[in-house]
Amino acid sequence: MLLRMSSLFVRTLRDDPAEAEVASHRLLVRAGYIRRAAPGIYTWLPLGLRVLRNVERVVREEMDAVGGQEVLFPALLPREPYEASGRWTAYGEGIFRLRDRKEADYLLAPTHEEVFTLLVKDLYSSYKDLPLLAYQVQTKYRDEARPRAGLLRGREFVMKDAYSFDVDDAGLERSYARQREAYLRIFARLGLEVVAVRATSGMMGGSLSEEFLHPTPVGEDTFVRSPGGYAANVEAVTTPVPEAVPFDGLPAAHVEDTPGTPTIETLVARLQEAYPREDRPWTAADTLKNVLVVLRHPDGRREPLAVGLPGDRELDTTRLEAALTPAEVDAFGAEDFAAHPELAKGYIGPGALGPNAPLGADGERAPSTVRYLLDPRVVDGTSWVTGADTDGRHVLDLVAGRDFTADGVVEAAAVRAGDPAPDGSGPLELARGMEMGHIFALGRHFAQTLGLTVLDANGKQVVVTMGSYGIGVSRALAAIAEQGADAKGLVWPASVAPAQVHVVAAGKGEDVTAYAEQLAADLVASGLDVLLDDRPKVSPGVKFTDAELLGMPVVVRVGRRLADGVVEVEDRRTGESVDVPVGGATTGAVLAAVRGEARGPGAETGSDR
Amino acid sequence: MLLRMSSLFVRTLRDDPAEAEVASHRLLVRAGYIRRAAPGIYTWLPLGLRVLRNVERVVREEMDAVGGQEVLFPALLPREPYEASGRWTAYGEGIFRLRDRKEADYLLAPTHEEVFTLLVKDLYSSYKDLPLLAYQVQTKYRDEARPRAGLLRGREFVMKDAYSFDVDDAGLERSYARQREAYLRIFARLGLEVVAVRATSGMMGGSLSEEFLHPTPVGEDTFVRSPGGYAANVEAVTTPVPEAVPFDGLPAAHVEDTPGTPTIETLVARLQEAYPREDRPWTAADTLKNVLVVLRHPDGRREPLAVGLPGDRELDTTRLEAALTPAEVDAFGAEDFAAHPELAKGYIGPGALGPNAPLGADGERAPSTVRYLLDPRVVDGTSWVTGADTDGRHVLDLVAGRDFTADGVVEAAAVRAGDPAPDGSGPLELARGMEMGHIFALGRHFAQTLGLTVLDANGKQVVVTMGSYGIGVSRALAAIAEQGADAKGLVWPASVAPAQVHVVAAGKGEDVTAYAEQLAADLVASGLDVLLDDRPKVSPGVKFTDAELLGMPVVVRVGRRLADGVVEVEDRRTGESVDVPVGGATTGAVLAAVRGEARGPGAETGSDR
Repeated sequence: MLLRMSSLFVRTLRDDPAEAEVASHRLLVRAGYIRRAAPGIYTWLPLGLRVLRNVERVVREEMDAVGGQEVLFPALLPREPYEASGRWTAYGEGIFRLRDRKEADYLLAPTHEEVFTLLVKDLYSSYKDLPLLAYQVQTKYRDEARPRAGLLRGREFVMKDAYSFDVDDAGLERSYARQREAYLRIFARLGLEVVAVRATSGMMGGSLSEEFLHPTPVGEDTFVRSPGGYAANVEAVTTPVPEAVPFDGLPAAHVEDTPGTPTIETLVARLQEAYPREDRPWTAADTLKNVLVVLRHPDGRREPLAVGLPGDRELDTTRLEAALTPAEVDAFGAEDFAAHPELAKGYIGPGALGPNAPLGADGERAPSTVRYLLDPRVVDGTSWVTGADTDGRHVLDLVAGRDFTADGVVEAAAVRAGDPAPDGSGPLELARGMEMGHIFALGRHFAQTLGLTVLDANGKQVVVTMGSYGIGVSRALAAIAEQGADAKGLVWPASVAPAQVHVVAAGKGEDVTAYAEQLAADLVASGLDVLLDDRPKVSPGVKFTDAELLGMPVVVRVGRRLADGVVEVEDRRTGESVDVPVGGATTGAVLAAVRGEARGPGAETGSDR
Repeated sequence: MLLRMSSLFVRTLRDDPAEAEVASHRLLVRAGYIRRAAPGIYTWLPLGLRVLRNVERVVREEMDAVGGQEVLFPALLPREPYEASGRWTAYGEGIFRLRDRKEADYLLAPTHEEVFTLLVKDLYSSYKDLPLLAYQVQTKYRDEARPRAGLLRGREFVMKDAYSFDVDDAGLERSYARQREAYLRIFARLGLEVVAVRATSGMMGGSLSEEFLHPTPVGEDTFVRSPGGYAANVEAVTTPVPEAVPFDGLPAAHVEDTPGTPTIETLVARLQEAYPREDRPWTAADTLKNVLVVLRHPDGRREPLAVGLPGDRELDTTRLEAALTPAEVDAFGAEDFAAHPELAKGYIGPGALGPNAPLGADGERAPSTVRYLLDPRVVDGTSWVTGADTDGRHVLDLVAGRDFTADGVVEAAAVRAGDPAPDGSGPLELARGMEMGHIFALGRHFAQTLGLTVLDANGKQVVVTMGSYGIGVSRALAAIAEQGADAKGLVWPASVAPAQVHVVAAGKGEDVTAYAEQLAADLVASGLDVLLDDRPKVSPGVKFTDAELLGMPVVVRVGRRLADGVVEVEDRRTGESVDVPVGGATTGAVLAAVRGEARGPGAETGSDR
């Protein structure tokens, strides 16, 4: 296919769009690939659409290669199936809901587990029909609170979602493993570095899930890796639980005056001054910090919650939300303190919380008592300095399990570099990543809820077991852009570039124009997609700058050196340029350059179509 | 591509779906091409999706061939552009509206004139940038009051919409003509008979518009044709206006008792009996019927309206709505009569309507006066028998222009077979059709409203002139199905069939299975898409019935005659079958059969991919 800059529906911009925070967003807009239609909602211009279709093609080919069957579901779906699964409510404000003229409830689907399940229920009835892998490449919707970074977190976006249906656990395991392999092939062909990490299943439920994270400083996710090969997103990291300590011989708890110590720092200083330890100085890790938040449940209910954790740890609300999904975490505000006079701000201890709170006159726990969850490190027998629930006072030698208990344990403390991996594979390091894909061994939750059973080999009805596998297609495009971009503009791998070659007619002479046209035609005849800059009244400098911004992997400059019988063939990524003599071998030299580019890290050849 | 029935995600159904009214809907569901997700909202199963992609491919190729540049707009769009054009309100209940979590208004776009206009405004500024033809193949939404007939009138559907941008009228004319030609080529390649008819522009505005109607008894549109080549949908038919008659010498109007004549039929009988004419008997055409309706405006306002038309004509509400778009027409009910005591039901005459109604004490027309519009045939000087606004009385010899006037003229009388074509090309015949495409020479309305101007060659800002061109892609698929279907099932043209050949392994022998596999592989190697029925425990009878239902254009039966060295190659459309000897020439014979099928009316060859 030949694309001509003279008529192409594209305009490059000199200035960055005001709202752009990341390189991919900035450059995709400046290079005329996408255009913002509303917050988190973008229009695809011709060059952008070509890249999107190329990414989709790679995804489809790998899905088909593992026996995936493509279908296409509506985006507009009725409430009922999502009501049955509980997700109509659980999604809270995160989805778009609407009503039709008959006042029936609909949603713009963010994912399609329910309706895939119902479709299979509709068509299949026997174990002989399984396994099934069905997928779609489809436009999805999420009403993100903070759409950002262009296509990286949008509200209307393209996803590939696949669903596997098996009659037993071994089948699900095979289906899951096959998708996992397909995902690694897809990202390799897209030239996109990814790390597969253990993840929490969130609203999906299920036993096992992994995220494919692209390591990048602009990623929204934090993940950890250990030297021994452990990898997980922070939500999925579990804390190795210390051994419980026997209570025998532990000193009794005692309340002390600690005026003006509402922070861990001031408290530690006061302890050091007034109650010095013999063995070593006090540290923040000796204190028990009780952090208050408000949980916002999907049905709108607000619930106060206290999390007790060592004073040297921060509360990670992402981890807390993952642990308590689908609730979201809000700040505990002044009005919440007003509603809980038993909480002495800055001096809150277990004594006012959960099962430790004083019972009412009726001997019952007051309904207003704040629920109390503990970090796994606060095991029985550990001693703490913590608030005494009175302004200016703390309690020392308060022993977990002896002097206080909690309503449960929660993984909500921030993970730190150097923390031990839960599998003993060494200290963790932290990195930022962006979620490119997520695979879930869902198990039987959706099938059970929606009644998807089949007859097994013994004529017995069994509940089908499912997997769900997503790739953010438009997000992957943005990640490829982000990964490739340099100071001059976009740099596409040949596997997804809108065109593999950009021929620049850089000069006024008729011979320049004629030769550029001929070369472009020859390259198209060789099976390449070519972008030809044939704009008649645009200077070579502007054309070269545009070529750098637009990012085709190979740029051929047909210019004043044509008089010497030479064109320049540049590798956009490395910036290296070679002189190629004009003649019968020119096309071949350009093809070689494209293949050379395509031999870069993980990218497929661009000549396979 | 080889599709295997043994693993294909499809199940054929014996029974028609309860709600299916038309053959295409019934068969597409029974054959497992689509599945209903909600009223007017369908899921595409693998075979259906393959046909959809094939139809899209034909449309894209023809759009690209006339210089169209593909883009992709969001379906979810903000209110503002549609507010600016007035269509946010004008669409009334016909679109889906929703709010995001920040209470901002959005719609699911039914068409994209506004945002295409704004995008071009955003990127282009000079006449040198034009002409531009941009298009998309995209999912659209309409909240139809009565979704019906499967894909023929859906609420979520696939459309191709293209938009042309030109600097002057001559440019628009060229762009329009080029699209028109492309449309005819598209429908020819799809094997779909269409008639291009003049149409009204409705909410689009603009000077010229044509619909491409597929003639079919299940069509929702009525259109007319004349022997001289005039063709229009009924909404666009204009009435040849008779010459006005001089008032001189016409007898004066006189009121007569006509008890018990609330209908045209009883009135004519009474006239014939009590006031016989000398020249000829009275006919319904001598009477002036005043029909009352209520207009429902998009803002919710209800307005009563009277339409005066010859008594032998019915009011056509489709034509009335087209004439008064975007208002919709409701019945004039008992409560409306109660609100208008001046209207004597069954005896309503011009005297109580519009400018003829008595003025109030202040000499002004009462705001409650019912607006009055006349059929174009009621020209000045024509004499009528009509209601005298008193129960049981009519007025005779009431002369238009002398004794009464109206607020205007309206084309709302039903068109009848035999009516003269407006261009004098002979009597009209009526037929039913289904809208497959609609092209509009929009002119400058949207560009003017949204501020799309460019500098012309003289450095002057000029408003761009636009065209808008739609094809219902999913609807075209249903029309192709409807047109091809026979008593046994679907019949696809090779140009869009999910596979061009259906190879049926009809027998238990290993040789049958092995040969069917080999033949299917050979056909795939020849570039065909092949559906292979390799289901091991399904009888030949069931397989043949399924092959008829599924509708691949060529069916190859590999069965018991394989022992005689013969396979049967059947043309699904004609039912004709030929014996083909097994051997080196078999593949060639099947290819010839596919090409033969493809040589049918208007369909392209299936081997071009």
